[in-house]
Amino acid sequence: MKTELSQKLGVEHAIFGFTPFPAVAAALTRAGGFGVLGAVRYTAPDDLARDLDWMQAHTDGKPYGLDVVMPAKKVEGVTEAEVEAMIPEGHRAYVREILAKHGVPELAEGEASGWRITGWMEQVARNQLDVAFDYPIKLLANALGSPPADVVARAHSHDVLVAALAGSPKHARRHAEAGIDIIVAQGYEAGGHTGEIATMVLVPEVVDAVGELPVLAAGGIGSGEQIAAAFALGAQGAWLGSLWLTTEEADLHSRALTAKLLAAGSGDTVRSRALTGKPARQLRTQWTDAWDDPNGPGTLPMPLQGLLVAEANSRIQKYEVEPLLGTPVGQIVGRMNSERSVQAVFDDLTRSFEKAVARLNRIAGRS
Amino acid sequence: MKTELSQKLGVEHAIFGFTPFPAVAAALTRAGGFGVLGAVRYTAPDDLARDLDWMQAHTDGKPYGLDVVMPAKKVEGVTEAEVEAMIPEGHRAYVREILAKHGVPELAEGEASGWRITGWMEQVARNQLDVAFDYPIKLLANALGSPPADVVARAHSHDVLVAALAGSPKHARRHAEAGIDIIVAQGYEAGGHTGEIATMVLVPEVVDAVGELPVLAAGGIGSGEQIAAAFALGAQGAWLGSLWLTTEEADLHSRALTAKLLAAGSGDTVRSRALTGKPARQLRTQWTDAWDDPNGPGTLPMPLQGLLVAEANSRIQKYEVEPLLGTPVGQIVGRMNSERSVQAVFDDLTRSFEKAVARLNRIAGRS
Repeated sequence: MKTELSQKLGVEHAIFGFTPFPAVAAALTRAGGFGVLGAVRYTAPDDLARDLDWMQAHTDGKPYGLDVVMPAKKVEGVTEAEVEAMIPEGHRAYVREILAKHGVPELAEGEASGWRITGWMEQVARNQLDVAFDYPIKLLANALGSPPADVVARAHSHDVLVAALAGSPKHARRHAEAGIDIIVAQGYEAGGHTGEIATMVLVPEVVDAVGELPVLAAGGIGSGEQIAAAFALGAQGAWLGSLWLTTEEADLHSRALTAKLLAAGSGDTVRSRALTGKPARQLRTQWTDAWDDPNGPGTLPMPLQGLLVAEANSRIQKYEVEPLLGTPVGQIVGRMNSERSVQAVFDDLTRSFEKAVARLNRIAGRS
Repeated sequence: MKTELSQKLGVEHAIFGFTPFPAVAAALTRAGGFGVLGAVRYTAPDDLARDLDWMQAHTDGKPYGLDVVMPAKKVEGVTEAEVEAMIPEGHRAYVREILAKHGVPELAEGEASGWRITGWMEQVARNQLDVAFDYPIKLLANALGSPPADVVARAHSHDVLVAALAGSPKHARRHAEAGIDIIVAQGYEAGGHTGEIATMVLVPEVVDAVGELPVLAAGGIGSGEQIAAAFALGAQGAWLGSLWLTTEEADLHSRALTAKLLAAGSGDTVRSRALTGKPARQLRTQWTDAWDDPNGPGTLPMPLQGLLVAEANSRIQKYEVEPLLGTPVGQIVGRMNSERSVQAVFDDLTRSFEKAVARLNRIAGRS
């Protein structure tokens, strides 16, 4: 699978894999794809440096990238305590009520809750970049909006291409105007933050909207058939995130969660504001149901919702409270039915891609 | 575009066009596709016979089909008046309130409102079939669930293939067990009644679920790129509905509605229960907003909602009350930007299909 973009990046197959796990990202790159390491959880720059050292040692000199989160709306200039104070007591009581109903234990004294608002703050992302540009990363992706102009310029000065996610042609045009190099058109069926427009409709619209810029298709892709479809729609590559969550190299820290992912069907996800305050696709659970319940208090806007539920999510994950246990994942979860190595999954993608192209050629009368 | 199914049906291109307009269906068939005439509005059998006579005279002996609506849940055994009586007065008042707010005039004395519940009743569909089997139709599609076993048997005795729409692999398996010949896998982005699973994910799942049965891909398809994607996903054909609404042969009886469709973007539709009580994608309007408003009374279940809003919809359409004026349509409406003949649209589909296949072959290293 060769496109202009894959050749520019020096990658054998135009398959981009987004993952929070260095072992998955490295395996993807070794397999001939392009691994993109999600950096949101690295609030300490040293942790990121340690994992990038590891990536560097395990990618055979092949290219990989980094994904940071720089929200369009800054939350600088306020302390976490000030933001905490904006959360209504009724919402805190609702969290306690759900946790009590399911008997979720407390964290141990002094035990930090995992993901915090800080991971979403621009300064944290900037600290990550200070580390990242010391490594030969080839791509910097931003999950929320266009990164600031100075970050784009800094990436370009390091010969790093900049990618940004778009859920509509309008977003994509805004990225193009901001000097972004690659648009990731992410459809409704994708895991994580998504808009309403499905991949089938979104990709050609974004391709048209941004002219010469390369577009990656994201959302609903987990097989070679879907990769072929992405190329047919005009993409220069496929961007896959969910598919790697059940690979052997992924470490979800919860067998119960892995089991839930393996058992889930394509109809078992929901686009909910429960996680961050913005619509994000995730496993549907009694937790998301509680936040989407018209008789509940509803969710708070970003970043308040994320802060409100951070400790609760840590407890749910730590104690593997099955009915509440979830994760961002796309509708492709219905096809994630076995735990295999990244290499085995990747080989399946290239094999089924070849079969899909051969079939299409027969239909088109070209074989 | 040749597949086993297209060859079985004797059609040049595996492009299936669903439309309520005989002129569009006939033009599709003449162009080398397969026109499928939607029959829901033919409550009088003679009207259907008249239009099938016309189809027969304008299709050069080429194949076409008919789409009927036989809901899984029967509403037989009750009179329309009895169903009417089940509608709460608060909902009727809400209809009057919206119409008054927008100054929508009354219908003239004795003027019938258009679409009624009767079009959805099984007996009406059976009367349609009594007419239809006198014509050499090649396909009978059912928009809601599997048709009854005797209808399937009757179709087969006339050498008519039976198709049914499915929004999930489970629905598709149920159709297969009911002896259906063709599954139309209709994704979230489609116009009309849809489920939550997007076409990109749904089509391969349905293909896997029904084994040897041919699957048509529906939802989000309006270009040759998207048709190529549908084939890549394993479909034996593409099923397009929305795209024909703005062709020259279509007659929406409203220039204002055509103008709205031409101007709408892919983000201007909504999956709402406002029309029938079941989620159906349509133009987002102040009418759908009123029914989806959490502060309103909400919608009623099928068939009550359809009955509740029938007269109001007739008035909105007759007087072209712009803010309320809508129609079922898919997200592909964003690409419906000019009024052209069916033939011109069809030629574009086949041309852009060839280009998409050629591009895919270059990416796959086959050109």
